[in-house]
Amino acid sequence: MVDRLFVMIILMAPWATEKHVSDLRKHIINSGMSASVLENAGRKLIAVSLCGGPLFEKSFETWPGVEQTFPIIQPFMLASREFNPENTLIQLKMKKSPGVKPAIFGGNDVQIIAGPCAVEDEKSCMEIAEKVKEAGCNIFRGGVFKARTSPYAFQGLGKKGLKILEKIKKQFGMFIVTEVLDSSEIPPTIEVADVLQIGTRNMTNFRLLESLGKFDKPILLKRGMSSTIREFLMAAEYILKNGNPNVILCERGIRTFETHTRFTMDINAFPAIKQISHLPIIADPSHATGSWRLVESVSLAAVAAGADGLLIEVHTDPKNALSDGVQSILPERLPALIKKVRAIKNILIEE
Amino acid sequence: MVDRLFVMIILMAPWATEKHVSDLRKHIINSGMSASVLENAGRKLIAVSLCGGPLFEKSFETWPGVEQTFPIIQPFMLASREFNPENTLIQLKMKKSPGVKPAIFGGNDVQIIAGPCAVEDEKSCMEIAEKVKEAGCNIFRGGVFKARTSPYAFQGLGKKGLKILEKIKKQFGMFIVTEVLDSSEIPPTIEVADVLQIGTRNMTNFRLLESLGKFDKPILLKRGMSSTIREFLMAAEYILKNGNPNVILCERGIRTFETHTRFTMDINAFPAIKQISHLPIIADPSHATGSWRLVESVSLAAVAAGADGLLIEVHTDPKNALSDGVQSILPERLPALIKKVRAIKNILIEE
Amino acid sequence: MVDRLFVMIILMAPWATEKHVSDLRKHIINSGMSASVLENAGRKLIAVSLCGGPLFEKSFETWPGVEQTFPIIQPFMLASREFNPENTLIQLKMKKSPGVKPAIFGGNDVQIIAGPCAVEDEKSCMEIAEKVKEAGCNIFRGGVFKARTSPYAFQGLGKKGLKILEKIKKQFGMFIVTEVLDSSEIPPTIEVADVLQIGTRNMTNFRLLESLGKFDKPILLKRGMSSTIREFLMAAEYILKNGNPNVILCERGIRTFETHTRFTMDINAFPAIKQISHLPIIADPSHATGSWRLVESVSLAAVAAGADGLLIEVHTDPKNALSDGVQSILPERLPALIKKVRAIKNILIEE
Amino acid sequence: MVDRLFVMIILMAPWATEKHVSDLRKHIINSGMSASVLENAGRKLIAVSLCGGPLFEKSFETWPGVEQTFPIIQPFMLASREFNPENTLIQLKMKKSPGVKPAIFGGNDVQIIAGPCAVEDEKSCMEIAEKVKEAGCNIFRGGVFKARTSPYAFQGLGKKGLKILEKIKKQFGMFIVTEVLDSSEIPPTIEVADVLQIGTRNMTNFRLLESLGKFDKPILLKRGMSSTIREFLMAAEYILKNGNPNVILCERGIRTFETHTRFTMDINAFPAIKQISHLPIIADPSHATGSWRLVESVSLAAVAAGADGLLIEVHTDPKNALSDGVQSILPERLPALIKKVRAIKNILIEE
Repeated sequence: MVDRLFVMIILMAPWATEKHVSDLRKHIINSGMSASVLENAGRKLIAVSLCGGPLFEKSFETWPGVEQTFPIIQPFMLASREFNPENTLIQLKMKKSPGVKPAIFGGNDVQIIAGPCAVEDEKSCMEIAEKVKEAGCNIFRGGVFKARTSPYAFQGLGKKGLKILEKIKKQFGMFIVTEVLDSSEIPPTIEVADVLQIGTRNMTNFRLLESLGKFDKPILLKRGMSSTIREFLMAAEYILKNGNPNVILCERGIRTFETHTRFTMDINAFPAIKQISHLPIIADPSHATGSWRLVESVSLAAVAAGADGLLIEVHTDPKNALSDGVQSILPERLPALIKKVRAIKNILIEE
Repeated sequence: MVDRLFVMIILMAPWATEKHVSDLRKHIINSGMSASVLENAGRKLIAVSLCGGPLFEKSFETWPGVEQTFPIIQPFMLASREFNPENTLIQLKMKKSPGVKPAIFGGNDVQIIAGPCAVEDEKSCMEIAEKVKEAGCNIFRGGVFKARTSPYAFQGLGKKGLKILEKIKKQFGMFIVTEVLDSSEIPPTIEVADVLQIGTRNMTNFRLLESLGKFDKPILLKRGMSSTIREFLMAAEYILKNGNPNVILCERGIRTFETHTRFTMDINAFPAIKQISHLPIIADPSHATGSWRLVESVSLAAVAAGADGLLIEVHTDPKNALSDGVQSILPERLPALIKKVRAIKNILIEE
Repeated sequence: MVDRLFVMIILMAPWATEKHVSDLRKHIINSGMSASVLENAGRKLIAVSLCGGPLFEKSFETWPGVEQTFPIIQPFMLASREFNPENTLIQLKMKKSPGVKPAIFGGNDVQIIAGPCAVEDEKSCMEIAEKVKEAGCNIFRGGVFKARTSPYAFQGLGKKGLKILEKIKKQFGMFIVTEVLDSSEIPPTIEVADVLQIGTRNMTNFRLLESLGKFDKPILLKRGMSSTIREFLMAAEYILKNGNPNVILCERGIRTFETHTRFTMDINAFPAIKQISHLPIIADPSHATGSWRLVESVSLAAVAAGADGLLIEVHTDPKNALSDGVQSILPERLPALIKKVRAIKNILIEE
Repeated sequence: MVDRLFVMIILMAPWATEKHVSDLRKHIINSGMSASVLENAGRKLIAVSLCGGPLFEKSFETWPGVEQTFPIIQPFMLASREFNPENTLIQLKMKKSPGVKPAIFGGNDVQIIAGPCAVEDEKSCMEIAEKVKEAGCNIFRGGVFKARTSPYAFQGLGKKGLKILEKIKKQFGMFIVTEVLDSSEIPPTIEVADVLQIGTRNMTNFRLLESLGKFDKPILLKRGMSSTIREFLMAAEYILKNGNPNVILCERGIRTFETHTRFTMDINAFPAIKQISHLPIIADPSHATGSWRLVESVSLAAVAAGADGLLIEVHTDPKNALSDGVQSILPERLPALIKKVRAIKNILIEE
């Protein structure tokens, strides 16, 4: 970082007085920043720089004489590629079973995470895990604590479900991804899970993000369904700033006016985020479309756009699924999908 | 409620077989509901009804032979006017100071809640409270636990701030509204606050909603910035279902493509929600516009549209506010605003 | 206007060379503008000003060494209050019937424009006009050229409908507002109509806007359903720049993620536009809500927010209306609505 | 099509009387459709079918006793795959130069259309065309009639520009795609262009769509930036219904709350539209992202999602482009992009 970091331009109004300018300049300097006054066509500009102090959000628009302010740098530093040019690689390793090949997010592989939306019962879950494993996936997903729009919908098996996930881990040597909704759910979950998932409805649950920062377990952070790319990276920054550098981003579709699909996959977000951040990013084509018929096409698109992995809902009996059956694909469809995904990734890295 | 409640129509595809229809019909009946098969133009319909059992969300779209499903009733019952035709009135009372006039939400008065976005220090806060009280407001707002997009922004004074709110309550006889972000913050806050506020970023923090259901303290539930009216009422349903009937809704602007204002106040939501729900609803013109210049006009509009109250950010020194200064009005502006608001309300209730 | 108008700040990248800066500076000067180079914290800024030449949009972001550009002034001049501080008043006058009181948009009155979405036949139309007139409205609306999403929907009576509008004008002494979709429809319509309406789907039909600029007939310009406030004023600018100063803006609801109502009335837009433009602005609560049940509340809200008038769909037989019946109110509802609207306007102007 | 086509279910309110039901039933039958009354749990349903008559949009929601209506079929027929299961192939052929290989949209090839946003002058345009041709593209794009948000922006060369396009066609044997904004521009343009483009701002300019229906020249119809998939196909239906079956759809990004990119490419739309329509669909990654840095990734994604072609802005001197330079790529980037696009298409069709 340079000695002084240029962070904001403040444009004073045509009617601003000398006193307006000097009062604001003093205030900025008293806040521990530096302020230079520039001038053009009778208008004054104040150029604000940081001098080693921490970055913070400060609004100067309410000061008398100010017309507009133009922030220059992105307000996230730890998540930013500007300060960490190299891709962050996040590795899953099974300490107790050293024979299982580690999975790396952010490198040349596409990681496929597959499984049911919710862990419903041991039998069905083991069956799905077996098929998913056969299809070539080493990472299993399944929710035991569920965030549901309706209080009358299935809320998950809770700790009972964690036992099922543990059994899958042991029996099939699969890494486990599962969601937590509340700080109190982290300790039991961390015993079993290899990745803790934060759902779209909790991306702005800042207390939970702070709690997650205190562990080093990888976090799968889903984008809020109406969060901007900037807000998404600010949520990651909460986890990073609290001490956990292992954040995997997940684009899962944003809310738009279109009602034909459940959400709109923001495909632009993959190259846009790769450009400004060093964190790995995966795609959730199941939630982004809300329809199993669209999952394969949108999976291929996400990988072509640069996604480091996919999070896919799979169910052996979608019609009886207690949650989101309509967007789950059958495990039989996975092998062809994975084959195409890998072929596309190869085209990209041949470059 | 009638004996059987008609909840859904399922349209079978033209190619659906007899077996498709009978399998699905059996499944519905086994799930504790009733199913009648109707027919038109060679197409079968299945009409699904509840028979006293609980309402739950169930997707039948993945069953073979199903073309489309049409849900008939709203999936919230406790928040719905269909089941509770009369307006819910929520009363704030100061037990320790019986001389203070109670405030009622949902009746013929417009309740004005005013104060700073964040409690910054005792001196400035007492000063704002005094001015706000003089202007005719009996309900003070001020955040001590803050949800901020940036981890580098001011996060609130926490419990120290609660002491300041307590002092305001005693000294000025004002009711207190303040936000909680996490279940752990409820017990200390409930000692001081008359209303617990849930912010827009926590409307889908279902664990927090569940916790709030266990108290009878009134809850001010802000609409998620990209939540539909249906999802907003479902979030209220979470609190109601867990035992707390005292929910005050708050429309605070939704996220749209427009960037000239910070959010877009959904003015349609006031009459729309009044029509389908019995809960009181207030407006937050400060966040909905993001600009103090627009606060008065949008306040008047909200009341004209049927709002039961207003939540307004007020600061005596907006340019030095640590949070959201640009949308705070000076207390000097309150008396004229309140006068017009009351005149408009009178026009509405003269009817 | 000042001698030099400061229009843009260009921030050069940290790695920009002297040559990058001087090349761009030369290019700006060659384009007829002036360019001053400022410096802060090792970064160069170029401040761009106009020197009497016309304003135009020019992107400098693709020049080597440029990091970001910050436009300073709004790119519309004729529609801007900055250059025309006083409200524009637009007056409708009936030359052939001097006894009819003129209607003024932009002053202290609220103008109510009422009538059916589409002119369907003479009998029903005369009947609606009579009732609307009795209710106290002097401006009749009715579409004869209809823009319909479906090519199979009723497309309007065309020139035959203009005859009906002419009859209404004569018989009831009402001003006429009707829509044109294409330049070729202007000449016959202008013979009858007092205001030409441009629908939301044609706000970006720039050829049509240009054509309208060549007349001095008042234009009712509806906001595109997904146009920003800036784009809305730029569309008005097209008409103004081509010579017609008589533009009445109309906020008719924007498209958002909410599906409970047909559109979302952007209530913030009224005070926001009043602040930056001198043009009158009215509200269309019928399209903004899509439901007659919400029309009155949203009408009152719009006037409370500063609207200069209302455009309301009225039908004596909404269930048989060929277009948009569901959002039409019965004429019987108008007198109470108008009474409340006027009472609210009085509260605003008493100020 | 079956004898009777089931088009709508009408749900009557619990309080609807026998007369409500019979009045509505009669009205439907008098409108030339058939109506069957079904019953469940004390509620009546009316099932509406067409009997050979034309499909039209009719709202029954305003009839007394009606609670809700559920439309069953999509209201477009000619654009629908339901009625035309096979992909429509649209072929460009150069009659005067039989040696030029035809280009087919909708088959196994990906068609790349490249060129500048606007035709600026002969020299630069010929230069771009030459480079684009060398890179392997046979279809040139360039606007001569421009739809610009600002009336002060470059509006295109008009007919003078058509001469330049003609020269490119002859000299390089390239097909020409160019936009028309108004019916009056069709006749001169059709002499030169192989495909007429309708821009996003004119997708709902229904008079223009009707005019285009009277020719058999292929039409490149861009999706309105805030049009739903259903409205997009309805706009195509306008052209098809008026007699021109040659419509190529183009997804060019939709307007969302995200501001980091100019628009959001709706990647879901490719498989979703392929499923319900037989028309070819291409992608415009330049407008969808607004940034040349994102063009390649989003191009690959669109093809992976099923796009039949790409419309890419290319400029040899983006920094001096009079329109949209920031989203134009250099022709040097085309060969690598095209190579990857073709490799991805091969993976898809190997299936």
